Amino acid sequence: VEKVKIAILGFGNVGTGVWKILKENKKEIMKRSNYEIEVTKILVKHIDKRRDITVSNEILTDNIDDIINDESIKIVVELIGGKDDAKEYMIRAMRAKKHIVTANKLVIANWSKELFKIAEQENVLFYYEASVAGGIPIIREINESLTANRIEQIIGIVNGTTNYILSKMTIDGISFHEALKEAQEKGYAEADPTSDVDGFDAVYKLAIMASLSFGTKVDQACIYREGIRNISNIDIACAKKFGYTIKLLAIAKEENHKLELRVHPTLVPSTHPLANVNDVFNAILIKGNAVGELMLYGKGAGDLPTGSAVVGDIISILRNNVKPSDISDLNDDLDFKEVINSEENQSEFYIRLNINDKAGVLGDIATILGKNDVSIISVTKDVNHQAKAPLAFITHKSSEKNITISLEKIKLLENVNSIESILRIESFD
Amino acid sequence: VEKVKIAILGFGNVGTGVWKILKENKKEIMKRSNYEIEVTKILVKHIDKRRDITVSNEILTDNIDDIINDESIKIVVELIGGKDDAKEYMIRAMRAKKHIVTANKLVIANWSKELFKIAEQENVLFYYEASVAGGIPIIREINESLTANRIEQIIGIVNGTTNYILSKMTIDGISFHEALKEAQEKGYAEADPTSDVDGFDAVYKLAIMASLSFGTKVDQACIYREGIRNISNIDIACAKKFGYTIKLLAIAKEENHKLELRVHPTLVPSTHPLANVNDVFNAILIKGNAVGELMLYGKGAGDLPTGSAVVGDIISILRNNVKPSDISDLNDDLDFKEVINSEENQSEFYIRLNINDKAGVLGDIATILGKNDVSIISVTKDVNHQAKAPLAFITHKSSEKNITISLEKIKLLENVNSIESILRIESFD
Repeated sequence: VEKVKIAILGFGNVGTGVWKILKENKKEIMKRSNYEIEVTKILVKHIDKRRDITVSNEILTDNIDDIINDESIKIVVELIGGKDDAKEYMIRAMRAKKHIVTANKLVIANWSKELFKIAEQENVLFYYEASVAGGIPIIREINESLTANRIEQIIGIVNGTTNYILSKMTIDGISFHEALKEAQEKGYAEADPTSDVDGFDAVYKLAIMASLSFGTKVDQACIYREGIRNISNIDIACAKKFGYTIKLLAIAKEENHKLELRVHPTLVPSTHPLANVNDVFNAILIKGNAVGELMLYGKGAGDLPTGSAVVGDIISILRNNVKPSDISDLNDDLDFKEVINSEENQSEFYIRLNINDKAGVLGDIATILGKNDVSIISVTKDVNHQAKAPLAFITHKSSEKNITISLEKIKLLENVNSIESILRIESFD
Repeated sequence: VEKVKIAILGFGNVGTGVWKILKENKKEIMKRSNYEIEVTKILVKHIDKRRDITVSNEILTDNIDDIINDESIKIVVELIGGKDDAKEYMIRAMRAKKHIVTANKLVIANWSKELFKIAEQENVLFYYEASVAGGIPIIREINESLTANRIEQIIGIVNGTTNYILSKMTIDGISFHEALKEAQEKGYAEADPTSDVDGFDAVYKLAIMASLSFGTKVDQACIYREGIRNISNIDIACAKKFGYTIKLLAIAKEENHKLELRVHPTLVPSTHPLANVNDVFNAILIKGNAVGELMLYGKGAGDLPTGSAVVGDIISILRNNVKPSDISDLNDDLDFKEVINSEENQSEFYIRLNINDKAGVLGDIATILGKNDVSIISVTKDVNHQAKAPLAFITHKSSEKNITISLEKIKLLENVNSIESILRIESFD
C-alpha cells in the first residue's frame, strides 16, 4: 500500500473529527482507498494552544507556505472556514497542483465558478461534500446518484441550530430566547447567532444545492430570506391546531425554467416526514421526475458527521473516480434561469392578527381578503369576545402580493390592533 | 456528442421505465454523460405482444444472440429478473466485452462473487444500484459516500409490498387478507405473493447490503427469515398500546466481528422515523461510526424510480468514474465474519397469549419468565376475568432461547390456552 501525504488547514471541531476518523478507521480507509493516509501538516493559528488531541509539534504549523511549498503533500483539506484566507489558500494549493477537499459553504456559494475553473486548469480535483448538511451526502446524491432525473424540487431542513431551537420551542414549549440560550450552552449556536438564526447559513447551502440541481449558477442575493427570531410560542400553538409544525425550510423549485428560491419559517403538515425531523438533525427532500420523492435524514453538523463527509471526499480523490471534467457542473454550460420574485410565489399562508373580538370583525377581514382573491381555509380564535384577542387563519394558495395588499387594508380596520405573523405553508404538491 | 449503443434485456415494468426516462430526460442525460444513448435492441419473449409503448420492430428481438454478437452494443441492461437466463446472459455479455447494469437482486445476492470476477477479468463495469430498494441509491451510499465509516448497523424497510399491507392493516384496520388483496389489485403484490410476504425478497436485499457494508460475503441461508402472514390486527392494536408500530424490518448488525442478520416483523417505537414510513415507501437507516445515523427514504419499486437507478448506473458507466478494481468489494479481500445464530440474538420481545383470566395466572407466567432471566416491562390485558382473553406483554432484552424455554413451560399452565404471537422489538440503541 502506497503512502499519501495530506495537509489540514484548521484544527477546530471538524479538523479534529477528521483526525480521529483517519486514526480510528485506518484499516477500513486503507482497504477502500488503497492508500495509507498520512497527515503531515496541520495549519493552526496558535501552535502552543492546549488541545484535547496530542499532535506532534512537527506537524503543526502557523505558516501556510510550509504546506503550499511542500511538494510531497498531494491533498489539502480546507477547514478554516470564513472567506478571504480560505479562498486564497485553496487557490494557492491548486496552483501548486494539490487536490482540494473543503467544508466551506461560504466560499463555495460565492466563488465556486472561479475555483472550479482553476481546478480544471490545474487538472486537480475539488470536492466539497461537507459544505452542505454535514454528514448527509447530498452533493454526491445530486451529482452522481440522481443523474437520470430532472430535479424539480429540493426542500430541506439544513440548519441544525434553528431546527434545535424550533424543536425545543415546539416540544418543550419554551421561548425563542430560552431555546437559543440552551443551544448556545450546548455549543449548537454561536455567541452571535445571526448567521444561523437569520437564515444566512441556510441561504448559502440552498445556493449550492440549487446551482447543482438546476444546472445554473444561483446568486444568493436572489434567495428570499427570513429567519426565525419572530416565531412565537403562540404561532407554534396555532399552527398545531391547524395540523402544522413550524420548521425553517430552504426551498428551491423549478417550473418552466423559472426558479423559486426561498428560506423562511414554514408551516409543514405535522404528518409529513420533515415535520418530524427534530433536534439538530437535518433532512433534505428531493423531487426528481423519475425517482419521485427521495429524502435523506442525518446529522448536519458535528465533528464526526462532517468529518465523515470530508474523509469520504479524500477517499474519492484517492480512488480517482472522478475526472476534473465531471465536477464542472457549477462551472460551464449553464442555462440561465429566471428567479421568480418572492412576491409572485404562490403559497398558502398562515396569518395571525390581534383583534378586538367584536361582532363583524371576522366578516370585515374575510371581505377584504375575498376582494383580493385570497380565500380562507380555516380560522382559529378563542371565542371570548375580549379586547386584544389573537385571531389566526390559513388561506388557500395566494401570491404574497395579494396577501400584502389585503393586510394593508385589514390593518386599518377599527377592531384590528396589529398584524402579528405572516408565515408561508408548504403543501408538498 | 458521441453516440453509444445499449441493449435492454426485458421490457416489463422497469424496462419501459428506463425507455421513458431515456426519452423524457434526453437533454439532461446527454449533458451529464457526454453521450447520446441509443437503445438499439430490446430482448423480449413475444415480439408481437401489444405494448403501451410503440417501439419499432427492428429494435425488438427474441434472440439474445442478436445482442451478444452485436459489437456496436457497449452496455447491456439486464431487467428480465429470475436467475438462470439472467445470469447466463450477463456472463455472455461480459465475455463479449459489454458493461452490465442490472436490477436483479436474486442473481446479485447469490452469484455476485462469480459475476464480479468475470467483470474484472474482462475489464468491464458491473453496476447493480437498482437491485436493492429501487430508487433509493443505497448501493452508492455504502460504496462511495460512507467510505470513511465503519458501518455498524443497517436497518431497513426494503419490501414495499409488505409495507403497504402492514400500513393498510395499521391505518385502516383491515385484515392481512384484505390488505393483500388490495395490494394485488393495485399491482403491488404478485398473484403468488410468497417472495414478498414471507420475507424472501427482503432477505436477498439484506444479503447484498450486509455484504457491502461489512466487507464479507453474506450467505443468505444464514439470514433468519420470518414473514408477515401471522400478523393480526390484535397484535397491531396491542403494539400500539405499548407505543409501537409493526414493520417488516431487514436488520444487519456487526459487533466484535460477529454479525446479526435477520428479517422479521418487528415492533418499532411509534415515534421513530421508520415507524412513519408508510404505503409502498422504503427506508433504510445506516449507523456508521463517524456519520452516526443516516436515513434514506424513497420509492423502493415502480417503473420510474427503479428506472432512475438503472439510468443513473448507465450514466456512471459512460462517465467511467469507477475502475473495475473499485467494484470488487463483494469479491476479494473479504474478512470472514461469524453469523450469530438467531437464538442467541438479544432482543426485547412482544408476546401475546390466550389465557383464561383467572387470579394467579399472570403471577405463574411471570414466575416462569423470571426463572429463565426474562423480565417483563409492561402488560396489557382486558380486565374482564373472561375465559379465552388475550394477554400481551413486552420483555426486557432476552435471548430468543430463554424466551422459547419459558414459553414451552408457560404453554403447560392450566389457564394458558395458546401462544398467539412472539415478535421482536427493535430499540435502536
